[in-house]
Order: sequence, then structure tokens, then C-alpha cells
Amino acid sequence: MGEKLESIPLRKIQIQDEFWNKYIKLVKESIIPYQWKILNDLVKDVEPSHCIHNFKIAAGELEGEFEGAVFQDTDVAKWLEAVAYSLECNPDPELERLADETIELIGRAQQKDGYLNTYFTIKEPEGRFKNLEEGHELYTAGHMIEAAVAYYNATGKDKFLSIVSRFADLICETFGTEEGKRHGYPGHQEIELALVKLFRVTKRKKYLTLAKYFIDQRGVGSNYFLEEEKQREGHIFPEFKGYDPKYSQSHLPVREQETAEGHAVRAMYMYCAMADLSYEYQDKELLTACKKLWNNVVNKRMYITGGIGSSGMLERFTTDYDLPNDCNYSETCASIGMALFGKRMAEITKDASYMDIVEKELYNNVLSGISLDGTSFFYVNPLEVNPDKCISRTYREHVKFQRQKWFGVACCPPNIARTLASLGQYLYFAGDDALYVNLYIGNKMSETIAGNEWNVELDTKLPIEGKSRLHIATEKEADLTIALRIPSYARHFKVEKDGETVKDYIEKDGYAYLTGRFKETEITITFEQPAVFVRANPKVSENIGKVAIIRGPMVYCIEELDNGRNLPSIYVDSAQKLKEQYEENLLGGVVTLTFQGEKLKENWKEEELYSERKVLREAVSLKAVPYHVWANRQPGEMLVWIKEFL
Amino acid sequence: MGEKLESIPLRKIQIQDEFWNKYIKLVKESIIPYQWKILNDLVKDVEPSHCIHNFKIAAGELEGEFEGAVFQDTDVAKWLEAVAYSLECNPDPELERLADETIELIGRAQQKDGYLNTYFTIKEPEGRFKNLEEGHELYTAGHMIEAAVAYYNATGKDKFLSIVSRFADLICETFGTEEGKRHGYPGHQEIELALVKLFRVTKRKKYLTLAKYFIDQRGVGSNYFLEEEKQREGHIFPEFKGYDPKYSQSHLPVREQETAEGHAVRAMYMYCAMADLSYEYQDKELLTACKKLWNNVVNKRMYITGGIGSSGMLERFTTDYDLPNDCNYSETCASIGMALFGKRMAEITKDASYMDIVEKELYNNVLSGISLDGTSFFYVNPLEVNPDKCISRTYREHVKFQRQKWFGVACCPPNIARTLASLGQYLYFAGDDALYVNLYIGNKMSETIAGNEWNVELDTKLPIEGKSRLHIATEKEADLTIALRIPSYARHFKVEKDGETVKDYIEKDGYAYLTGRFKETEITITFEQPAVFVRANPKVSENIGKVAIIRGPMVYCIEELDNGRNLPSIYVDSAQKLKEQYEENLLGGVVTLTFQGEKLKENWKEEELYSERKVLREAVSLKAVPYHVWANRQPGEMLVWIKEFL
Repeated sequence: MGEKLESIPLRKIQIQDEFWNKYIKLVKESIIPYQWKILNDLVKDVEPSHCIHNFKIAAGELEGEFEGAVFQDTDVAKWLEAVAYSLECNPDPELERLADETIELIGRAQQKDGYLNTYFTIKEPEGRFKNLEEGHELYTAGHMIEAAVAYYNATGKDKFLSIVSRFADLICETFGTEEGKRHGYPGHQEIELALVKLFRVTKRKKYLTLAKYFIDQRGVGSNYFLEEEKQREGHIFPEFKGYDPKYSQSHLPVREQETAEGHAVRAMYMYCAMADLSYEYQDKELLTACKKLWNNVVNKRMYITGGIGSSGMLERFTTDYDLPNDCNYSETCASIGMALFGKRMAEITKDASYMDIVEKELYNNVLSGISLDGTSFFYVNPLEVNPDKCISRTYREHVKFQRQKWFGVACCPPNIARTLASLGQYLYFAGDDALYVNLYIGNKMSETIAGNEWNVELDTKLPIEGKSRLHIATEKEADLTIALRIPSYARHFKVEKDGETVKDYIEKDGYAYLTGRFKETEITITFEQPAVFVRANPKVSENIGKVAIIRGPMVYCIEELDNGRNLPSIYVDSAQKLKEQYEENLLGGVVTLTFQGEKLKENWKEEELYSERKVLREAVSLKAVPYHVWANRQPGEMLVWIKEFL
Repeated sequence: MGEKLESIPLRKIQIQDEFWNKYIKLVKESIIPYQWKILNDLVKDVEPSHCIHNFKIAAGELEGEFEGAVFQDTDVAKWLEAVAYSLECNPDPELERLADETIELIGRAQQKDGYLNTYFTIKEPEGRFKNLEEGHELYTAGHMIEAAVAYYNATGKDKFLSIVSRFADLICETFGTEEGKRHGYPGHQEIELALVKLFRVTKRKKYLTLAKYFIDQRGVGSNYFLEEEKQREGHIFPEFKGYDPKYSQSHLPVREQETAEGHAVRAMYMYCAMADLSYEYQDKELLTACKKLWNNVVNKRMYITGGIGSSGMLERFTTDYDLPNDCNYSETCASIGMALFGKRMAEITKDASYMDIVEKELYNNVLSGISLDGTSFFYVNPLEVNPDKCISRTYREHVKFQRQKWFGVACCPPNIARTLASLGQYLYFAGDDALYVNLYIGNKMSETIAGNEWNVELDTKLPIEGKSRLHIATEKEADLTIALRIPSYARHFKVEKDGETVKDYIEKDGYAYLTGRFKETEITITFEQPAVFVRANPKVSENIGKVAIIRGPMVYCIEELDNGRNLPSIYVDSAQKLKEQYEENLLGGVVTLTFQGEKLKENWKEEELYSERKVLREAVSLKAVPYHVWANRQPGEMLVWIKEFL
């Protein structure tokens, strides 16, 4: 397996990209400040989150009851994690002060033995670690640890790191195979990948050992959660009655799992940890399991938008090729998890195909989660919507046609925030003597590779046009391998070095490898990314007779505003060329696609439901916009998969 | 509005019909005895129902706790109702003895003040009538009353009738607009139509008044159930949290309701009572509301199979034209309710179009509920099934690809039993001087109309062939109007009287009226009912580009066994003629349809999920069977709406 590639630390990258800057700006200027108000119950007309309040009660500084979900603390953790990434990229003393204050409060809410969780501390002190199935204790701990590691990396301050280390120590003492310890594992995975991060900054092996224990123990023997249920009464979540171990991927030992099952976010966070541990322990069997699970998702259970978890009920995977377009879940957080998993796999395998999926997630099912003004969010990302049919208390109540302000269970908005704030992690990987360029997103960066510091600048016309320029410079000429990702959708991929076409690069696993001695060099990467019609495997019954449109990493959709009502009644000839046009003033600047089609005429009487009547059609001009910007204008229908003429 | 038509009492009709006899026989010989064992917990490997046990505990004859659903008593009531209809058609002293014993037990379980409900008597005596939203108390009472009325009609014995009358008296004292009475109404409608029945046999006006009160009070002012929730803690049914008054049709006064909303069975039972009351009070406004609601269902919210309630979540209506085929609910019981509603509307309006829908329900979404051997049942009746995708704890967990043995909540099997046992009620209506023939189902019958007793015999080749013979005879020649229903699907409808074509019949609202003096006459009714392709209104987005096949009242489907896998990948040319063939030994004897089509070739690699690849097709021969017999052979895919070439 060998050494893995490494991301460039965020502090060394400055993203300067026309497409992404506006989102990153939203995080710093809008989402982080807004969430701070949410945490402190300062937003009018929004149900109080009680987050900071809970910590003050746990710290003994306020009287009162715990309020919110069992995992309410994670909102504070995810905010701190996003703040950490933001500070690492752009220092901000005032924001850092707020974060430090919050960390102080967390420290005061920590119990003497290291325990840290306001729900159990306030509400159920006797219940610690007794309801792993539903209590989200280890999940919450994981988010705290991730935040603390990020904050340490960003600021060098170790206060938060020492708080979570004390808690991690307690968890190490509590769980394990040894007699007297609990043989359980998290009902919602997350702490496993967090413990690997904690090990990597603290170098304390026991955290890695505990992560490995949680992964190895999972699904072994009789199901822990079903056994646990016998020891307690009732459920925190009524829907957990009749618990299905697949839901938390505890139905089989992880190495025997070959299909992605259960709750999609749980699955993704677990796969991340499996990938991490496969590397740390050079465990090929575990890596093989990761590959099988990845392939199962990508080849059989993923929407073209990158959405995963097709069941509206319980936010979970169902079965191969079961990808309904209009009642799916496809949670934004699950796609974030998939990106985290893909990045780890790419680092370990040096295979760029993983980054194709990471890119697909970021430009589609992740970005669709946030409105262009950064104030509203989708948890659920459907591929077909008719607002009339999105009715609460029916089978489509989870599907929204407008992004929501800030949910009661606020998992996606802060998850989007931390993802955008740490976008830099996906751009490059550094190897022993190589620089890997994954995403052609404009930036300035410097990093030491093989003892030499390289100053790198990338500017790009992407995603509008497939033209990027990579400028590298170092003080003294030195050896370097530059690996340029060749996107799976790229046509006529061409590399020029200082104006001359490079023909002798080596192509391997989706990267173009250029090896040489460089001092100051300009490399241009050009490719075409024409808009094309694609089809789904005919086993996806929902998409038979339909086409989707992709251009580069982006999936397109048609909206009612541009194309009228009853979008499913539109047919297109997929042999036609799609006309591309950059519209600067539309939806923050997007390439739109226009094409011709036919639409059913409304030649039926309203009260005629079934009849032998023929259905007539009429010619229509159509316009598609990128999927991720849908629902940013007026409410209306949206459709990704369009019927095609046979 | 005038006088309504009346069903012929069951005792006066003997069904003798090749198609229906086998089902009716199942009820008597298989379902009723099997359910008796279920009620008494005598079936191995089936979770005990505890039904009779609960009554014994309530009667003080056994120690123990109540077990089962809050409405567990209704299983006993529905069994008794089915038994009553069966006894009325075919006396059976041994069965009558079991029923009498059960009624005695019910009598002993009744409380001194008339109260009768084992759940509240045993488990929550202080909770009487305090949780109308969820407690199903009045619903349960309604089923008891219906059973008692049926038993009285069948046997003339009034023991059960007097038991439920005492209970009804208590309910009369408890509910009403008067001060000191509860101003509530049922969370699940049913008692309203039952009280009308009780009034009609006892002639006690107060029962009718109470039914009217429940209907008039519903949805008036601030919602009763939401107010009630404030007075108590928690929910019996966790899914009732965030209660939507539409769910129980209490969102508006019933006269203001124009669209069918909420739980489909609740809605249907309420509409039945509204129709009953519109007649009893000659309330045109109420009848207008019934017509609007009926039209909304039939023209905008009903599957071609008669299925209603398209939401898998909460078994409810959603919105106009929202009719997904593969995750719908379409409960068997809701279709039974629709048949009951349609019959009432036809009786009041003398409009045969109501009976078209009743017939559609009976031959499709009702009959599909029961297996050909009578041992297993569908609650949910989808129009598209892939067994691989019916996975528990996902969005399609309610969809089954095999009928189930006997459910925990056993509402549909006994409901089917009582429907089949009382099938005779739908065949004829008697008017002042007219006999209405609704369904061409073979039978012998005698009834007095305008003072004359008519002996009637109908035999038919339906549903195989559109040929029926009606023989009527009376002692002395007398006047009679014979109204023959002209089915909406009938072509070349022709009536002959004693061998001569009748040309001068008057056609009105779907009936052919023949008036004359008759002594002994043979009338033949012939029509064609060719299998045809039909389309759905293009507003039903799921069915755009698809056709269904109907023949007479029956909808057809294709099954995997006859047509291979991936049925949604089949395309047909709807201009072709469907070849009809009666196959005596297939599925109890059915007319099958064969036709040509094309199917997508599996020219994709398994791991290729999205691609620009073209999809190839190949010619296939196809075979369709009636929808109601699907899933009676080996498990597999099923599909009603088939893609058509444009």
C-alpha cells in the first residue's frame, strides 16, 4: 500500500476562484455569524436552538432543563470546526475570540472525569453509554474531537484539544475488548474518523487503537444494539422500534460488507474511518472492503447528481439501481461524507477516479444544499419536483421545493459550512516527490515537496470553460513530478509546458504525470467539456426512456420558470446539439443550455382521468440550468431526467 | 330528491355465478372458520390476536392484561358481520351457535352503563371518550353496531341489537351540542353510518340524530382533536404527533369539503354517512357535498384499478393527479369504502355511473386483496412492483409482492370477507315500480315490487363474454320497469326481449329503462367489451407516455413470469389489436391478452451506471392477465402502466 498522499494544509492555500469565492465568502460573512446567533438563540422567529444554553446549564452557570435533540451539542462543534477552517484560511481576531470563549464554556461544562455531553450530563447522568443505539454520545464526541483538531491546526491553541483528549481518554477506558469494558460501538459512526485525526495530531496510539476497536467490533457476534435494547425501556426515537442492524451498518463485520446499507451518513463516516485505518495499519483487507463499498455506491446506488441514500424513510440506502427521482432523500450531508471518503481513497490509491466523484459531489448534491444567498438550505435533494405534490404528512413530506431557513435538526447547514471552509483540502495532494492537482479551482499555494518549497498559482476559466493555467516556481531548479487529473468527462485533454504541447506525459489512473526539473514553469491544461445527453443503466427503471444532461462536472436540470408546467411531459431528441451560453447575470453567472423538444398538449378535459384519447404534442424551446442552482428563483417544478424520443 | 332505491335483502338472493362463486365459497369455507381460530388464538405460528381473550377479561372471567391494538374488538365485530351475511345467504346452525356464544360473551363484557370496549374497560377505564383522536372508541362501537344490525337482519335474534343499542344510548347521552355533553366526534369515522343502520332497524330517531350531530359537528370551530391533545399527555400512535386535521377530515365542516383529504378509509366511511344523512334529511346541500367529493376522487385522485389514498405514509390522499404507481397505498379497505359510498349514491341518484365505479372497485382493487386460495391478503395494492425494491424499513416497506397471511392489524381480511359475503347487495336495486339490474352476476332472486312478487334469474357469461340472460316471472301479468345498467365500457349494447331486439328503451343516466307488462319474460343483454389500451390524463405525470389495458371492468397487468424481468423496459404499439383468449386452467380461469412489444436489451455493463451509450431494443411477445389475480403464481415483477411508442 505504501505512503499515502497528503492534502496541503489550508493555511498554505488561498482560494481565488470566480466560481467558488462567492460561496466561501458566504460562509465567512454570512453562515458563521448567522449560526453563532442561532447557537445563542438570538434569531427572531426561529425556534431557539438552546445550544449554548445547554452548555451553561451543564457548567452549573444557569438553572434549567436540557432542550433540543440528543446530539444538540454537535451544532456547537460543527460551528467551531467551520470557524477553525475559516480562521486557518483567513485570520479574524474577533471570531477567534468568540471561539475561544465558547471553548472555555465547553471546558467548564466538562465533567471531572472528562465526560462531555450536555444531554446526558443534564438530563440523564445515569444513562451514560447505555443507549449507544440512539444516544448519539460517541457521534457527538466525534464532532467535538474533529472541531478540536481543526482548531488546534488553525490556531495552535491546545485548550480545546486537551478538553477532547480527556474525554477521549475516558472513552478509551470505557470501551474495548478487555473484561470490564463495554464491548459496544457507536450507533452513529463519526468518532472513529475523529479518533484517527486526534491520533495524527497527538501521536497517542491509544486513540488509533480505539478507532480500530470500534471498527473491528462492529457487527461481530449478536447485535450489540438489539442486546442493549433488552436492558432498557423504550426508545428516544420511536422510529427505531423494530431496529434493523443494517441501519447502522452493524449487520455484519465491516470487512464482510460488500453493499452500502442503512443510513447514508452513518455509512459514509464509517467508510472514511475504514479507509483511514486501512492506511494506518496497512490493512489490505480493509482497503478491499472500502473499494467494494465505494464501487457499490458509485456503480449501483448513486444518483447522477452524486446523491446517495434513496429512501425518504430513514435517510438510507435501499438496493442496487433503486433510484426514484421524486421521493428520494439524497441528503446533502451524505454527499459531504462521500466526498470525505473519496478524498481518503484517492490519497491512498492515487487513483483520480475517486476525485471525479468528489468533484461530482461538490458541484452538484453538496452545492445544491445551499441557496445562492447563503441563507437557506436543502437537506433533501430530489431530481424531480412538483411543488403541488410536496405535502406534509404524506409520503413526500421530506421533499421541499424551497430551501429551508434553518432546520430544527441543523445538520446540513453547518456541514456545508465546514465543507466550503475547508474546500482547499481537495485541491492538491502532495506525495514524496510529486504534486497532484485534483480540482482545477483557482488558488495560490506554497508547499514543500522533497525538501523544496514550491510556489504554485492556478487560475482557471472552469467551470465555464476547460482552460486552466498552473504556474510553479521554486528558488533553485529541482525535480518534481506534477500529476494533473484528467477529468473523466474531459475531451481532447491537452497539456502545454511553457507554450509547448507535452506529449510524453504518462497517464495512469486518471492522472497525467509530468516529471522533470523545474524552476519556473507555466503549464496550461485545456480540455473540452461539451454538454451531452447521458442515459442511465436500464436497470434503473425510473430512468428508462429518459436522458440527463451533463456538462463537465455539472448535472443540468430544467425548471418551470424557463420551460412551463408539467416538465415530465417534455420529450427531446437526444441527437441534437445543446447550445451553450454563459449568462453572467443569471443565477450568479452560469452556462445555460438551450435545445428543442416537444411537450404534451393539454388536450384533455380536467375531469377526464382515463380514456382512449390520444395525447397530442407541440414543439417547445427548452432551457436547462445547472442542477445546483435550482430553486433560486421562483418556486416551481424541476426535472433532471427528461424523456427522449426513441 | 325523493325516495331512494333499495338493495334486495341478502336472504332473497342466491348468487350462482362461475366467477364469484369461488370467492364466496372461500369466505364461508375458509375465511370465516380461519378467522374464528385467529380470534381464539388457535393458529400456530401466528401472533395471538387476543381478541376473545380480551372480552373474557373484560367480562371478569379471566385475569390478565388487554393485548392488541386499541381497536382489537373490531376483529370480532367484523367476523360477526361477515358471519351474519353468510348466515343470511346460507343458514348454518353450527356457525350460528358460535356466533351466539360470542354475542353472549360480548354481552357479559358490556359494562352496567352500556359501555362496550375491552381496551378502555381493561386498560384505561378513566380514559373513556377522552382520546377520540386516537382511541378508535366510536369507530369500534360503529363496527359493533353494524355487526349487530346485520345479525338481526340475518337471524331475527335481537340480543346483539339490544347490546349495541344500550351502548348507542350511552353514546347519545355522552355526545351532542347540549351543555354538559361532549362536543367531540370520532377520530376514525364509522359509527355515523352504523347509527343510520341502527335507526333504520330500530326506528329510534335519536340514533339518526346522533349520526347527524357527528357529521354536522365535524370540522366546526377550533379543531376538537387539537384541543383534546392539550388535555392529555403523549400519543397512542407516535405518528400522530403534529396531527393534521385533514387526516381525519376534520379540517373543515363537511359541507365545505370539496376535495378528498386525509386517511382514505376514514374519508369513505364519512362520505357514506353523509350520503345516508342527505337522504334521511332530504338535505340537498349535503348531497351536493357528496357529489363534489365523489367527483374529486373519481376524476382526480383514483387509480385506474379503483385504488384510492396514494400516500404510503398514513394511508391517505395527497393531491389531484398525484398517483405514483410503485409506492402507493391504495388500501383494499378504502376501495371497499368507495364501493359502499358509490352504492349509496347510486341508490339516491339513480345514476349508474356510480355503479361503474363500484364494479371497478370490486373487480380490481378489492379482489386483488385476496389470494385465489383465500389464505393471504394485500392491504396495499400497487400498480408497479419489483420485489427487489420492497424492503422493510425503507420508503417502500408497505409495498408487498406477496399477499400476507394475516396481519397484526387485521382490517382488510375481515373487511373483504364481509364484502364478499354481502355481494348480493350490489346486484339489484328495487324502486317503487322498478327493478334495477346493476351488476350482471349470476343469481336467483325474488322480490316484491309494487305489490307483485317477481322471481328473477340471471345467468351470464361475464366477465368472460358480454352476454347475460335475465328471466323474470310473476304469477299474474303486471307492470314493471326494468332498468338495465349500461356499463361505461360496453360497446354495441343490445337488449332483446323474448328473442326480439328492444329498440324503444329509454336511456337515462347509464340505465336502459324498459317499461311494460310482464308475466314471464326472457331478456338478453349483450355487449362487447374488447380489450383496449387507455391513457391517463397527462397531469398524472407518472403515466405520461404509458398505456394501461382494460377489458370490461377489469384492468390488466403484466407479470414477470409471463414477460421476463425489467417490465418497465417494455414498449408497446398501442395501435395493435390485443388477442383475447380464455384460459380455463390459468389462475382459476381468466381471459388473457397477448400482444407484441419491444424490450430494452441488457447491453450495459453491470457497473456502468451512467453513460452516453445508446439503449438497444429487441422484439418480445407479451401476455397480460387481470390485475386482481396478480401474485398468485411465483413472486416477481408486476406492471399495469406500460410504455408506448410515440
